[in-house]
Amino acid sequence: MKLASLKSGRDGRLVVVSNDLTRATDATHIAPTLQAALDRWELFCGALSDLAEGLAHGSVPAFRFHEHDCASPLPRAYQWLDGSAYVNHVELVRKSRGAELPESFWTDPLMYQGTSDANIGPRDPVRVASLDYGVDCEAEIAVITGDVPAGATREQGLAAIRLVMLVNDVSLRNLIPAELAKGFGFLHSKPPSAFSPVAVTPDELGDAWRDGKLHLPLMTAINGHVFGQPEAGEEMTFDFGTLIAHAAKTRPLSAGTIVGSGTVSNRDPDGSPGRPVGEGGRGYSCIAELRMVETLREGKPRTSFLGFGDTVRIEMRDRKGHSIFGAIENRLEPAV
Amino acid sequence: MKLASLKSGRDGRLVVVSNDLTRATDATHIAPTLQAALDRWELFCGALSDLAEGLAHGSVPAFRFHEHDCASPLPRAYQWLDGSAYVNHVELVRKSRGAELPESFWTDPLMYQGTSDANIGPRDPVRVASLDYGVDCEAEIAVITGDVPAGATREQGLAAIRLVMLVNDVSLRNLIPAELAKGFGFLHSKPPSAFSPVAVTPDELGDAWRDGKLHLPLMTAINGHVFGQPEAGEEMTFDFGTLIAHAAKTRPLSAGTIVGSGTVSNRDPDGSPGRPVGEGGRGYSCIAELRMVETLREGKPRTSFLGFGDTVRIEMRDRKGHSIFGAIENRLEPAV
Repeated sequence: MKLASLKSGRDGRLVVVSNDLTRATDATHIAPTLQAALDRWELFCGALSDLAEGLAHGSVPAFRFHEHDCASPLPRAYQWLDGSAYVNHVELVRKSRGAELPESFWTDPLMYQGTSDANIGPRDPVRVASLDYGVDCEAEIAVITGDVPAGATREQGLAAIRLVMLVNDVSLRNLIPAELAKGFGFLHSKPPSAFSPVAVTPDELGDAWRDGKLHLPLMTAINGHVFGQPEAGEEMTFDFGTLIAHAAKTRPLSAGTIVGSGTVSNRDPDGSPGRPVGEGGRGYSCIAELRMVETLREGKPRTSFLGFGDTVRIEMRDRKGHSIFGAIENRLEPAV
Repeated sequence: MKLASLKSGRDGRLVVVSNDLTRATDATHIAPTLQAALDRWELFCGALSDLAEGLAHGSVPAFRFHEHDCASPLPRAYQWLDGSAYVNHVELVRKSRGAELPESFWTDPLMYQGTSDANIGPRDPVRVASLDYGVDCEAEIAVITGDVPAGATREQGLAAIRLVMLVNDVSLRNLIPAELAKGFGFLHSKPPSAFSPVAVTPDELGDAWRDGKLHLPLMTAINGHVFGQPEAGEEMTFDFGTLIAHAAKTRPLSAGTIVGSGTVSNRDPDGSPGRPVGEGGRGYSCIAELRMVETLREGKPRTSFLGFGDTVRIEMRDRKGHSIFGAIENRLEPAV
């Protein structure tokens, strides 16, 4: 089942979307919003699933689905916890700050609580007041959970995954060092994120969804050029069940909590930092990684962070080449 | 106007409460929940205000108001940003960790993004899995904002304050050092918070609300004994307008965002750390401060963190001795 929230008010209007993302049908008679559906998932899930089947068979009224009509699946969410499951990314970012990677980072997930009260629409601009902030993208996978009790196990975490989607976790790189030095984590340096037009149930992913990971390449393009296509199922040190259990160690997670994977990242087969796409590598899901690789090789970064007018596109295709979640496409624009 | 959310479903049921907290009247015909009222405050505020007046004059149906029937005013909120406006508290906590206070902390507010998807009811137990976590309270003031644009000024921040309330920011002290050392801020060490039964509009506070601060003592009692009664309007280095502007530097804040003051804290008049209530001082709003003062004086802390069965009560009275927000009263219980 594929679900989306068409732009409408603060919480969007729930629709079921066809598998090929071309058609949709109104689902507001079942639940007005995705949050409402998640609040009583056990009650509504069957009816939404029936609607998806009706849409597939042409037996329910349908209309043309346009990704740019979408808000993020949860236009505002009660909780957004972003992990750093690809420790290769963490190691590179640390190196670029001249910081060591503690050994514990391979066993104890990094995770922060982010802002999710005003998620950016998948095709809406990202607006910032100044390019001095060092604006970067981070392409990630995320899951939306049902209710998870405090102290949940990995298995309970896996069972609580309702939907899977993509994220562009906008990052203001030049604000990060000073902010983290204050000791309380990200605030200014992690403004709102954008999520993919469509969120899908795990069964929709077939055998690409296994072991709590999504085994497909995640494509990031900047201004139409492929920037990265790392395999999201490889080198994910912590699977989503582990990330959810980590999040829930001392708190329950309410239905509609979003848990992110952190920037998807691969090394080269020889263990060295991955090469750019143009050099036969799998590339990157954020500019900071490329800058780090440049620094390691050439002594300083060569690639700039995003400028006004630059566009980041994030998408994942199945093994047949079909877009699963629709595309995030955010243009960087000055704050109005 | 005083508003509360009676326990009902995930978001409570909106009621208007009488000034003396003895009676309430249903407000769900205006807006079903406090979040719904905040979403369209300009539209609903007048009708809610009329209802409050009707309640005061006995011209609307009323029922007996019981604080223990309340959920937190926002049982789940889209954003909770907790500042550290009482830098004295920050300085003491840092000292207790053997860390210096950077000079910039007097001009650049500390703030973190916390969990608010499952706020604890004002009279509900706080549940933790282990006392080894070092369970502490933090008595604070908080405001609920309307929509605030990114880049808002202090004045826009002040104008966006819709409601004021109290918080018990539950803190797991023994988890904090290792978590902050990871660099991404609080996660496990800041489980859900409890808010006061009632949230009030700033005009309800009279001249105690001025300069973006609440000029009244905040009372904390542990197991029935007064533990602290610091003046919340004194030594608040950053007023709520400044805290909101800080929060909104790179992001908009959606209606229903909660911004906290951080632990209310006073020094002694001579500038030394405040003395306990029993020694003629104003006491503390968290146990960690007392332990720090003990460490400074006696070489080590003498007072334990909370044990199972211990009860923390947080309340604020006006100059006539009347409770403004009702009382938070949380008993510490083992996780079930």
